[in-house]
Amino acid sequence: MIKAGIIGATGYAGSELVRLLINHPDVSVETITSKSYTGRDYKSVYPNFSHIDLVCAEENTEELAENCDVIFLALPHGEASKRINVDILSKCRIIDLGADFRLQDVDVYESWYCEHYSKDVLKEAVYGLCEINREKIKGRRIVGNPGCYTSCSILSLYPLLKEDMVRENSIIIDAKSGVSGAGRGLSAANLFCEVNESVKAYKIASHRHTPEIEEQLSAACGKKLVISFTPHLIPMNRGILATCYADLKKEYSYEDIRRVYEKYYKDEYFIRLMDEGIFPETRWVKNSNFVDIGFAVDKRTNRVIVIGAIDNLYKGAAGQAVQNMNILFGLDERTGIDSVPPFPV
Amino acid sequence: MIKAGIIGATGYAGSELVRLLINHPDVSVETITSKSYTGRDYKSVYPNFSHIDLVCAEENTEELAENCDVIFLALPHGEASKRINVDILSKCRIIDLGADFRLQDVDVYESWYCEHYSKDVLKEAVYGLCEINREKIKGRRIVGNPGCYTSCSILSLYPLLKEDMVRENSIIIDAKSGVSGAGRGLSAANLFCEVNESVKAYKIASHRHTPEIEEQLSAACGKKLVISFTPHLIPMNRGILATCYADLKKEYSYEDIRRVYEKYYKDEYFIRLMDEGIFPETRWVKNSNFVDIGFAVDKRTNRVIVIGAIDNLYKGAAGQAVQNMNILFGLDERTGIDSVPPFPV
Amino acid sequence: MIKAGIIGATGYAGSELVRLLINHPDVSVETITSKSYTGRDYKSVYPNFSHIDLVCAEENTEELAENCDVIFLALPHGEASKRINVDILSKCRIIDLGADFRLQDVDVYESWYCEHYSKDVLKEAVYGLCEINREKIKGRRIVGNPGCYTSCSILSLYPLLKEDMVRENSIIIDAKSGVSGAGRGLSAANLFCEVNESVKAYKIASHRHTPEIEEQLSAACGKKLVISFTPHLIPMNRGILATCYADLKKEYSYEDIRRVYEKYYKDEYFIRLMDEGIFPETRWVKNSNFVDIGFAVDKRTNRVIVIGAIDNLYKGAAGQAVQNMNILFGLDERTGIDSVPPFPV
Amino acid sequence: MIKAGIIGATGYAGSELVRLLINHPDVSVETITSKSYTGRDYKSVYPNFSHIDLVCAEENTEELAENCDVIFLALPHGEASKRINVDILSKCRIIDLGADFRLQDVDVYESWYCEHYSKDVLKEAVYGLCEINREKIKGRRIVGNPGCYTSCSILSLYPLLKEDMVRENSIIIDAKSGVSGAGRGLSAANLFCEVNESVKAYKIASHRHTPEIEEQLSAACGKKLVISFTPHLIPMNRGILATCYADLKKEYSYEDIRRVYEKYYKDEYFIRLMDEGIFPETRWVKNSNFVDIGFAVDKRTNRVIVIGAIDNLYKGAAGQAVQNMNILFGLDERTGIDSVPPFPV
Repeated sequence: MIKAGIIGATGYAGSELVRLLINHPDVSVETITSKSYTGRDYKSVYPNFSHIDLVCAEENTEELAENCDVIFLALPHGEASKRINVDILSKCRIIDLGADFRLQDVDVYESWYCEHYSKDVLKEAVYGLCEINREKIKGRRIVGNPGCYTSCSILSLYPLLKEDMVRENSIIIDAKSGVSGAGRGLSAANLFCEVNESVKAYKIASHRHTPEIEEQLSAACGKKLVISFTPHLIPMNRGILATCYADLKKEYSYEDIRRVYEKYYKDEYFIRLMDEGIFPETRWVKNSNFVDIGFAVDKRTNRVIVIGAIDNLYKGAAGQAVQNMNILFGLDERTGIDSVPPFPV
Repeated sequence: MIKAGIIGATGYAGSELVRLLINHPDVSVETITSKSYTGRDYKSVYPNFSHIDLVCAEENTEELAENCDVIFLALPHGEASKRINVDILSKCRIIDLGADFRLQDVDVYESWYCEHYSKDVLKEAVYGLCEINREKIKGRRIVGNPGCYTSCSILSLYPLLKEDMVRENSIIIDAKSGVSGAGRGLSAANLFCEVNESVKAYKIASHRHTPEIEEQLSAACGKKLVISFTPHLIPMNRGILATCYADLKKEYSYEDIRRVYEKYYKDEYFIRLMDEGIFPETRWVKNSNFVDIGFAVDKRTNRVIVIGAIDNLYKGAAGQAVQNMNILFGLDERTGIDSVPPFPV
Repeated sequence: MIKAGIIGATGYAGSELVRLLINHPDVSVETITSKSYTGRDYKSVYPNFSHIDLVCAEENTEELAENCDVIFLALPHGEASKRINVDILSKCRIIDLGADFRLQDVDVYESWYCEHYSKDVLKEAVYGLCEINREKIKGRRIVGNPGCYTSCSILSLYPLLKEDMVRENSIIIDAKSGVSGAGRGLSAANLFCEVNESVKAYKIASHRHTPEIEEQLSAACGKKLVISFTPHLIPMNRGILATCYADLKKEYSYEDIRRVYEKYYKDEYFIRLMDEGIFPETRWVKNSNFVDIGFAVDKRTNRVIVIGAIDNLYKGAAGQAVQNMNILFGLDERTGIDSVPPFPV
Repeated sequence: MIKAGIIGATGYAGSELVRLLINHPDVSVETITSKSYTGRDYKSVYPNFSHIDLVCAEENTEELAENCDVIFLALPHGEASKRINVDILSKCRIIDLGADFRLQDVDVYESWYCEHYSKDVLKEAVYGLCEINREKIKGRRIVGNPGCYTSCSILSLYPLLKEDMVRENSIIIDAKSGVSGAGRGLSAANLFCEVNESVKAYKIASHRHTPEIEEQLSAACGKKLVISFTPHLIPMNRGILATCYADLKKEYSYEDIRRVYEKYYKDEYFIRLMDEGIFPETRWVKNSNFVDIGFAVDKRTNRVIVIGAIDNLYKGAAGQAVQNMNILFGLDERTGIDSVPPFPV
């Protein structure tokens, strides 16, 4: 059994992770910690766990590192880089669900986030987008688990950039997210009556997932690119839909592009390419690790429109974290995260 | 491996059943049938199954009975009783998710539903409310899987009637259900804009789950009782909350009643008694087989108010069907239906 | 023009009131106040007012009383009774949307709420349920505007008690409310993901609207009665549905009861009695001052089930406050609050 | 009083129109017709009208033209062009809420829709986007009332094209709509459980509002342009948000662009330009005729991102139809459609 600790277990992503790890056949959850709820029964914080005995422990990273094979962190940005150092890394594997170990370029990190407190560790970190970086993840000691918008956006566009089919700086990603992406923190903007029956864009031209997408897509095409990324808030609990636009470099047909997507994804269990004319909807991936991708070629404008859908808390956070753990520990990548999505749910 | 067939696999309950059985470690899904979608890929009807190859077969009950160990039926009332006879029963086990084998009193059935076409089989059927009838279910060949409102209502009130604590004819059940309970059939009343942002009562003093609750509660207390049952439609996908009122026969304290609930339910894995002052909410059981129950004693009126919550498609249909199958085939009752409910979902 | 001031203009009820008064042909809104947003543009707090210039003033009740013909208060309980005294009353009319001037029995008020700071004023106050107390409201200087659950519940049951048709202590009111009833205050329990896709009961056997309903229904039947009242939270913005149960004293027919409802309500513009077999749904009254009422007689249990629906912020708060103002100032009662409810909305 | 007839009064747009016209001080609703509900009480089709006596008449366009000053048509495409001819036009004014009189280019109409049956009348029709075509609308006999997506999209982008600030073929409009845009027709795809808790794109690169936007924006800039337009379905009743992207021809500042929007819109009552950093959300315009517009300049990509929000049934259909009527009949443009949007609703 892999002994797992979870730091920050009472946010939505942390709680989803606890749930997946408890259901995982090869994991034993040793310790969960929470700053806000230290000492509290987990079931009083999340009554969906009412049949399970778990207490929110005080955090002690050192101790956790001694007792666990893997530590997951689900914390606000800046918090993981304060906690993780080479000493910790020598004792256990780290999977960070926050932003601190995602961007390789420290300057970019610091210009979008805050000071980075463990730059040496960052060099060792791998970007845990499993379908793209699987081979690099194996054997690594620390994984920066991708953001929710980014997982969806990068996987949707990756083959097109890898194969040089689109104008690099023409990319526009218009993304829609359920409200759980905003977390469980108190905010008037996230009260039911403020969110329900409305849709809005937010952090226009300024969302922090932008540089993460740019770094990965730039790596894919070998050129430094900039994108437009606009997130929107949708009155639903879970799900991300990314509608991606890009100018084609040539007059490609649907089949031309299909061939490229199949080249990269046909053996990827968690990526489901939709048939021509069928497009992803978040309901078909909700509560699962699947990434649904579909696309159309608009001949009138010579653009490709790619649509990707994921569950933001699952493939966009906790599910992919478990997938990364499975890779790190040599398990079948699907263990514990392979179930048919429920519907309607 | 238990070989399973599902007749009526393209309604919401049928589809939930297919999902649970595919994920079940001891079951192989042999055949699924659908009248409306014969010959169609299941993934085209339910794209949440996009990674799975399944085709909706034409229904042939005889053949199914030859090839399967268990047949599940998820059909409109009157359809199962036309299909199931002693010959079928001699070949395989039957779990019917419809109403045909739930009521033992044929006259009551026929007055609320329609003609019953297999009265001899009905005598052999057991009412598959697992927590109450577990011992009777074992060894039986046919199970009438309870309705969604009824599972929730009966389990909420059972100990009070069994222990003679409430006035039999004072029972009022005010129930609230998500929209999936209405099924996937086309109906203007179930269009998004007609249901969203509204709440209504329906089938007032005339819902067909009334006699089912009455038959079971009458059996529990040994007296013929009548109840008031009012279902309501709530703008959400899944979940049932039953708010149950009953006049106490004496001045019972909270602890008096608690003792009785614990007597019947303390070893029931799927029933979670809430602590005093905590009440069930459907979100904590959504997408799970759990039944959450809490209650309060109102000293001003000397009434007990019991609140029960289940997922209507899971414990209220497909999950309990699997639980019944587990009992019939001697498996651990929790196999394939034991997971922490996801939240928020 | 009636000069109006609004104290507490930035809660949901206060904001609905500002909206209705701005649209009212005979009112000029002189001053709005807000403790939390003093000095702020109202449009920055409620961008639906983006085309209107209004600033949240600091509260000064004395000054308001000098300059206004009527002051509306939309404050937490205990706050209005601290502000209103005979001096204020001598200068302008008061309509209080809070609880302080609703209950005539001070002891009951103080046992359910807190100390009452203007008991002399309370004696002069009238309970502003317009359809019942219209004649008593005329000429009064202070109106206690009814609560949302109570408006709906009392109007639903009043004729039955007035005409002595039901057992007084058999009344059970199972009410369902949209989330705006909880106000705009920060509370984790009202975050979108906590409310959406769920239903729950709350304040079981302990909600403060209980004594308000009891006082009015007791007055109607001339006997002190107790009721069971259970509020539920529904994932929608607005609307209240009250499902009311009562044991009939005799075997009344539908027509017997219909006659009584028509006796009291047939000339009431804002009360719409549904035809037999038709029941209220909150969507048909949303964003209006209408009260829809329907009922059924359950012959099996000899109970009557009455269902009432209102918009909690409109007839349940701001709309009825305007209706009360119209009565106080001799206007047509419908002025400014008479529009067809929009649908779907 | 303007005598009005409404053909197709039982769709969502038709019903919203009936509501607005009944509330309009200068209009009397003479006749409403419905193919599906001929002879039925309107209140039985839309119980929000329960206090109003209206019957769905059989349609007779000739008779309507004799008796009415204005006829509104809310019909599927192709139906209005079959009904309206020069004879009808000589008797009364026509406002068509469908697509038949929106596109000036018949070939474009016929390639996206179907045969056009009154091409001569089409020449006389004016595109009823009031803020842009006000002067052209005056004195006209027939108005093609714009589509919902188009009203929002064109108004959001118009100043930029009029002033030659953006690359014509770089325009991408990613639009999000509530479900009422799909109408009240029976469709499995619009059942509550299929729409709720999900988001999807649909009619990708093929939605019929595309040529309507292109015709108007081409007219604005004097060049034939093509755009990408992607509609999305959002789990809410009402509202459209259009997120519009365009490459700037020069390095414009926020103020440069602001100046241009103010040039065109500063006196437009129904257009509300948001302050810098504030962006439209559909909740602030729901149930009103307002158009909220905000924008940002993304210096990294040299794009402008403009966001517009309207209520699809109000400014996107019935409200604008009334606005057009007001213009045609010389009334104050705001009559009957000028109210503060309610919130939360």
